[in-house]
Amino acid sequence: MGLEIERRFLVLGDAWRAAATRSRRLQQGYLAREDGVSVRVRVVGNSARLTIKGPGSLVRHEFEYAVPTAEAEEMLTAFCGGRSLVKTRHDVPHDGLLWEVDVFEGPLAGLVMAEVELPDAHRPLVLPDWAGREVTDDPRYANAALASAAAPPRG
Amino acid sequence: MGLEIERRFLVLGDAWRAAATRSRRLQQGYLAREDGVSVRVRVVGNSARLTIKGPGSLVRHEFEYAVPTAEAEEMLTAFCGGRSLVKTRHDVPHDGLLWEVDVFEGPLAGLVMAEVELPDAHRPLVLPDWAGREVTDDPRYANAALASAAAPPRG
Repeated sequence: MGLEIERRFLVLGDAWRAAATRSRRLQQGYLAREDGVSVRVRVVGNSARLTIKGPGSLVRHEFEYAVPTAEAEEMLTAFCGGRSLVKTRHDVPHDGLLWEVDVFEGPLAGLVMAEVELPDAHRPLVLPDWAGREVTDDPRYANAALASAAAPPRG
Repeated sequence: MGLEIERRFLVLGDAWRAAATRSRRLQQGYLAREDGVSVRVRVVGNSARLTIKGPGSLVRHEFEYAVPTAEAEEMLTAFCGGRSLVKTRHDVPHDGLLWEVDVFEGPLAGLVMAEVELPDAHRPLVLPDWAGREVTDDPRYANAALASAAAPPRG
């Protein structure tokens, strides 16, 4: 079982783009969500993964398995109807950590959010200038919630 | 994507036992269920599988992946709390098809149910004498529903 320790922030402006080292488009959907457990299928280029995450916000247990891309695409289409999203993820290194800036598309267009995974929950975090309000504990900004949202949460 | 065509019946009496060819204990839980999609983790002896089933009763689309047994056991414990069940499955060949007779344990003790997978939805089915009421379309008898049940459905 993996342990994911992750903090999430809204992103201010475009300054992060100059520091981005890599970008790729992610298509993901939620097969099912229940009692805080979510099962996600994600396609990135020619690879795909199934991820099971336990309840929680800052710290979550997760299990991840590679699956055939064609099957993941079938699952996205057949099973994730109103529970999917598309975003472009940009890697932005800052202060020795890897920030991932997600630019959402479709009904969530306008939303830009950054995630940073921490080696442990108490690691001090030096925020980049473009990090806005922290939304780690705001359930509206969990991707599993965003996938069902008609528009990005305001405020 | 696999297509599962399956009919389910309650089981009358014990006569099926004489024809059983193989038995094994299954432990399974539901990671999450939403809009008819269910994600199941199942452990049988030293092997384990993750199964994603689409909505439906007689015909369901399904995807299945082998996962490490230790991880499946962790998922059962950590994520499937009130959504799991244990049963012993007996293979009972009848009229050229494989019937699986499930004898449930714990809160579902007393429930015995048989499933038969059909090569196609129109294959005529010769019922064994011990096949009782058909419950294929009764949502209370779906394993995903039984896993949350405090007692077997009556009637």
